[in-house]
Amino acid sequence: MTRLAILTGGGDAPGLNAVIRAAVKTAINDYNAEILGIKNGFDGFLDEGGIFPLNRDSVRGILPRGGTILGAANRGNPFARKVIIDGEEKVIDYSEQVVEKIRSLNLDALIVVGGDGTLGIARDLHEFNVPVIGVPKTIDNDIGGTDFTFGFDTAVTIATDALDRLHSTAESHSRVMILEVMGRDTGWIAIHAGMASGADVIIIPEFSMHIEEVVAVINRRHKNLDKTYSIVVIAEGITPENLLGDEAKTSYPDQEKSVFDAFGHKQYGGISHLLAKEIEARTGIDARAIVLGYLQRGGTPTPRDRFLATMFGVEAYRNAKSGNFGTMMALNGTNIVPVKLSKAVNELKRVPAELYERCKHFFG
Amino acid sequence: MTRLAILTGGGDAPGLNAVIRAAVKTAINDYNAEILGIKNGFDGFLDEGGIFPLNRDSVRGILPRGGTILGAANRGNPFARKVIIDGEEKVIDYSEQVVEKIRSLNLDALIVVGGDGTLGIARDLHEFNVPVIGVPKTIDNDIGGTDFTFGFDTAVTIATDALDRLHSTAESHSRVMILEVMGRDTGWIAIHAGMASGADVIIIPEFSMHIEEVVAVINRRHKNLDKTYSIVVIAEGITPENLLGDEAKTSYPDQEKSVFDAFGHKQYGGISHLLAKEIEARTGIDARAIVLGYLQRGGTPTPRDRFLATMFGVEAYRNAKSGNFGTMMALNGTNIVPVKLSKAVNELKRVPAELYERCKHFFG
Amino acid sequence: MTRLAILTGGGDAPGLNAVIRAAVKTAINDYNAEILGIKNGFDGFLDEGGIFPLNRDSVRGILPRGGTILGAANRGNPFARKVIIDGEEKVIDYSEQVVEKIRSLNLDALIVVGGDGTLGIARDLHEFNVPVIGVPKTIDNDIGGTDFTFGFDTAVTIATDALDRLHSTAESHSRVMILEVMGRDTGWIAIHAGMASGADVIIIPEFSMHIEEVVAVINRRHKNLDKTYSIVVIAEGITPENLLGDEAKTSYPDQEKSVFDAFGHKQYGGISHLLAKEIEARTGIDARAIVLGYLQRGGTPTPRDRFLATMFGVEAYRNAKSGNFGTMMALNGTNIVPVKLSKAVNELKRVPAELYERCKHFFG
Amino acid sequence: MTRLAILTGGGDAPGLNAVIRAAVKTAINDYNAEILGIKNGFDGFLDEGGIFPLNRDSVRGILPRGGTILGAANRGNPFARKVIIDGEEKVIDYSEQVVEKIRSLNLDALIVVGGDGTLGIARDLHEFNVPVIGVPKTIDNDIGGTDFTFGFDTAVTIATDALDRLHSTAESHSRVMILEVMGRDTGWIAIHAGMASGADVIIIPEFSMHIEEVVAVINRRHKNLDKTYSIVVIAEGITPENLLGDEAKTSYPDQEKSVFDAFGHKQYGGISHLLAKEIEARTGIDARAIVLGYLQRGGTPTPRDRFLATMFGVEAYRNAKSGNFGTMMALNGTNIVPVKLSKAVNELKRVPAELYERCKHFFG
Repeated sequence: MTRLAILTGGGDAPGLNAVIRAAVKTAINDYNAEILGIKNGFDGFLDEGGIFPLNRDSVRGILPRGGTILGAANRGNPFARKVIIDGEEKVIDYSEQVVEKIRSLNLDALIVVGGDGTLGIARDLHEFNVPVIGVPKTIDNDIGGTDFTFGFDTAVTIATDALDRLHSTAESHSRVMILEVMGRDTGWIAIHAGMASGADVIIIPEFSMHIEEVVAVINRRHKNLDKTYSIVVIAEGITPENLLGDEAKTSYPDQEKSVFDAFGHKQYGGISHLLAKEIEARTGIDARAIVLGYLQRGGTPTPRDRFLATMFGVEAYRNAKSGNFGTMMALNGTNIVPVKLSKAVNELKRVPAELYERCKHFFG
Repeated sequence: MTRLAILTGGGDAPGLNAVIRAAVKTAINDYNAEILGIKNGFDGFLDEGGIFPLNRDSVRGILPRGGTILGAANRGNPFARKVIIDGEEKVIDYSEQVVEKIRSLNLDALIVVGGDGTLGIARDLHEFNVPVIGVPKTIDNDIGGTDFTFGFDTAVTIATDALDRLHSTAESHSRVMILEVMGRDTGWIAIHAGMASGADVIIIPEFSMHIEEVVAVINRRHKNLDKTYSIVVIAEGITPENLLGDEAKTSYPDQEKSVFDAFGHKQYGGISHLLAKEIEARTGIDARAIVLGYLQRGGTPTPRDRFLATMFGVEAYRNAKSGNFGTMMALNGTNIVPVKLSKAVNELKRVPAELYERCKHFFG
Repeated sequence: MTRLAILTGGGDAPGLNAVIRAAVKTAINDYNAEILGIKNGFDGFLDEGGIFPLNRDSVRGILPRGGTILGAANRGNPFARKVIIDGEEKVIDYSEQVVEKIRSLNLDALIVVGGDGTLGIARDLHEFNVPVIGVPKTIDNDIGGTDFTFGFDTAVTIATDALDRLHSTAESHSRVMILEVMGRDTGWIAIHAGMASGADVIIIPEFSMHIEEVVAVINRRHKNLDKTYSIVVIAEGITPENLLGDEAKTSYPDQEKSVFDAFGHKQYGGISHLLAKEIEARTGIDARAIVLGYLQRGGTPTPRDRFLATMFGVEAYRNAKSGNFGTMMALNGTNIVPVKLSKAVNELKRVPAELYERCKHFFG
Repeated sequence: MTRLAILTGGGDAPGLNAVIRAAVKTAINDYNAEILGIKNGFDGFLDEGGIFPLNRDSVRGILPRGGTILGAANRGNPFARKVIIDGEEKVIDYSEQVVEKIRSLNLDALIVVGGDGTLGIARDLHEFNVPVIGVPKTIDNDIGGTDFTFGFDTAVTIATDALDRLHSTAESHSRVMILEVMGRDTGWIAIHAGMASGADVIIIPEFSMHIEEVVAVINRRHKNLDKTYSIVVIAEGITPENLLGDEAKTSYPDQEKSVFDAFGHKQYGGISHLLAKEIEARTGIDARAIVLGYLQRGGTPTPRDRFLATMFGVEAYRNAKSGNFGTMMALNGTNIVPVKLSKAVNELKRVPAELYERCKHFFG
């Protein structure tokens, strides 16, 4: 092994810098391997100044920092890159140029840290004989083949802190407080943060609840337990149709809908505000929604995420050295093992029914 | 001094329990005074079970907890209480009953912990010879006559933590990140959190900026400093008219406006989402808004707020004992001194021009 | 299943209350099982008032709290209980009384939450046909058969926060800062916190380093990297002999030794203060030691520990219901599975060589 | 105003970087003044490479970081600098060279950020017509003339977090937990953290308690309140004689004493370990001591300290510009005002009797 490169792609996840640092330190200490940084995802292979050497100084002090010193992809996919030509946006396949660049650099391995989009590109490049090693990255924990991804523990911690704070306000004001958390099409953050904070209802895409079920839990608390407040966690992946069923078309006014659509549900938390309005209308109890949004993505990683990300970086280098290309590093118990990229990226990991059943005992 | 009572009114503020605990502990230790808790603000004087004795056990372990063990007012003002009579909501003056109840309880003093609304009621009751002592409570720090209020430091800390987290994501993704914070008609939280986190622009009601000024700062950063990201703090008190001037009527579509109005600007952060859209439209740079909302109000108080709230509680008791009725406890440097309630509640404390000028050197 | 009991034994670990709450909530929601709390470990079976029913109200609000509402064992082991008889301390076998008591209570299951000592007693009671289910508890993560124990993540987080803080002071003052962490005879906390914070040297009992090796790393940093500060993590299990070898007898003055012995090494951090003195003497660089001690044991558990502890409690109940007695709940990847108590308690889980080798690349 | 310089001296205090950043940003934005950084306190005037220009890039990203980018003094006092000449340490007065260097640099002002030692040097240099502006720096809050110093709030926050954690362990194990905090000869940190966390006893140098008073509080809790645990905060400034009076000579064994002296009380927390032993001996209750030490000095400052430090930096520049030399910036309520250096550095600020009296109501 003499020369390898590393890039990060996709959304921010706490721990990216820890992966980079670990790969660089292990590579340099082990065999004095040369390691290059590629800026802004695969774009760095095409952009001027996009490739630069990494050394001990490059990674000093970055372990506890959020973000990524390599930058995240802007235009992203080399197989379908958006470029402006003559004032018009076009989508062009630049994969040949990227593969050619990688060859001309004499790279023995390319470590790709990213979510399913970025890892899918890595898998495709591997079919062109690019010696790729993948490292899974998502705060949503929805990548298959690995027990957990780094960044997830940080996101859960931020969401749990928020829920801890909301408890006292909900109680003092006899209100329903709703927290909307990330997770794309899965409920991992919602389930973990909701269970860690003792939420009264947790609504996730895998096993969505109709508004009347939610209302039933809240009413039961108020009647049986004499509790005039409730804490609800809702995952961003829930749709108005999940909550309201056919009523979504009628009860959900056109006017609101058009604005929800204009702003984008996820961006301004349309679903949780809708839930608040429906709970107020159906129970007569004040309800308020808070949307955590990007607060879950940034800042210093938890110690667990720093350790996990470091070990992902170490194993990425070690597997590169062993020539296990086309694999993604995956946490399996306390070990990090290589799994086929082709298998991992096709599999959306959802909250299993057994887990959700256990959690339901805590509702209400 | 033999018998006093304490109530808390208005919105949640971290430190309420610390005030209650301090008044109770000082009263009991000092003269074995009897101290009664009044539930849910002034309502407790009228509702059954609304008055109960407080002792050491009542306040054990509550110092670090958010919320208030006395509950916050629901229907609030005894001078204009909302009641349902024959299915119709009416506003009735119950002040005579409250004053009568206070007399029949033989209270030597009534400690009222609340914001300007609740303290205004306290001032009015004092004119009916109720021996009131006020303690200012607001996370917004906008009550006159006192250097700071408890709860403010906690709100600033939560907002600063959020801003620290947003920095790395803004940088990795070359985005403008906007955080909307509380403060009602003042910019105290925005200025303190913005300065503590190194925000690039801070928009407050006292000295509002037009959107073009905001855009100018962002563009200057991007051009002169080669920084492709910016952090903006906006106080909830800003209106579309503040930001857009006359354009608010035209550029701000009716459709959006009607929904903003339906949901309430503050509740779902209309103003910060509007700002994000305008920045994107005028600079071409991605912008995202996060609304902290109720996260600023709850949870464990900072050590400073616990200490300050404790000292407010101690002095409330001591001033009650000295007969300084009709006063509000006020922080003055490192001392807590009594000021006339009639003076304090008429004065909205705003961010002064000298402070804002100093902060502007840090913009951009 | 109609009636079960739960007790907690041994040292404090964040998450104990979460286990209790989870077992109670699952039991009540599932079959309306009755669940009893046993106070102060096995002592509760013998002491007056030591047995009391647990219900939803008993466990309300305890999820985020450190400590245990059941109390931890004082005199502990029923097989060898210390009692004062006629002013003299005697050790008496009370196991028959305990077993009899358990039978007379008609317990269908007894959930025992504890470390290796407490779980060893559980295993022995199982041989007397007591239907025990064990839940492993230790911040040290040294119990065999389970990937992790609850409380460990909280301990690592506290230690990492401390190390993050020490970095800036070490750098500003050009010093060696030493942090002593818990772990009994293992280095789990040291390795995880050290790696999470980018420590320069981590000294653990499994692969102890001689003082000259430690000094070599510090000197290399100062010479090659021009870094005039270093961060060292040392596990409490290290002895003067580990560090100094034969020199321990000579270089380590009798006078100091006698006091170290008098106070107990672990209690006042003798080993880390000794290390500081030796580093100063051998490198000429200022060195300071901080002993985290009990700070690692208490306070609110991390979200991960709350989730893990909750799932341990859920599975303890479910395995009790299924009659899997004589087992300990164990984390295996993302699942909690029963393993034989007899196997788990005989196995001290140590940091494996493969992990330590990977960490060593980061030293210096 | 065209050219100024800034240096930091003495022990680490969270917020030093915020002062530097604020002075630099205000200077550059206001009049494009040139500002120089002096390395390692006054030593930078004498050492090669000790003077370098500061600009926007120098201070980017340092606001939330502990430590100081300028380094803290090593050999310190130019009036009595320790140097090695021919292998022998000598103390030489270099003040003339420093004054000459300052003149040759054509400095219009020198901002000196430091504790009483460093500010005393500043005062002396002012008598040689060096245009100095002082900024008070100490986590101990013991500098006269200013309501608070930056760094103090951070130290109090860290100590309070520690005390919050110790509560649950103390309760679960029926123990006395003792926390030793910094403060030099004053009890500011102890009083603020102790009150913020609800400590049962707070022992400070200004009003020290004899061991029997401490024991009386603990016993009263155990007897009257049925509480079998207590939390004690002790300031590092307490001596064995304070606690034990004449008994210090007899009850305190020579052997221990000699080691305490060898290691230094403050460095290894001799006083708190001694207190633990005495409490155990006199009450029969287990007692444990934890020494926070350097953990209170480092790491990211609280938002309040960042704001305060920023405003100190702003006003240092503004007072330099106005020519208010020989002054120290001082917090007075919500304003920062200049006070005479000669007055401030002669005055040790102690916890006043009125404050301590109020706190004593909360003991036990």
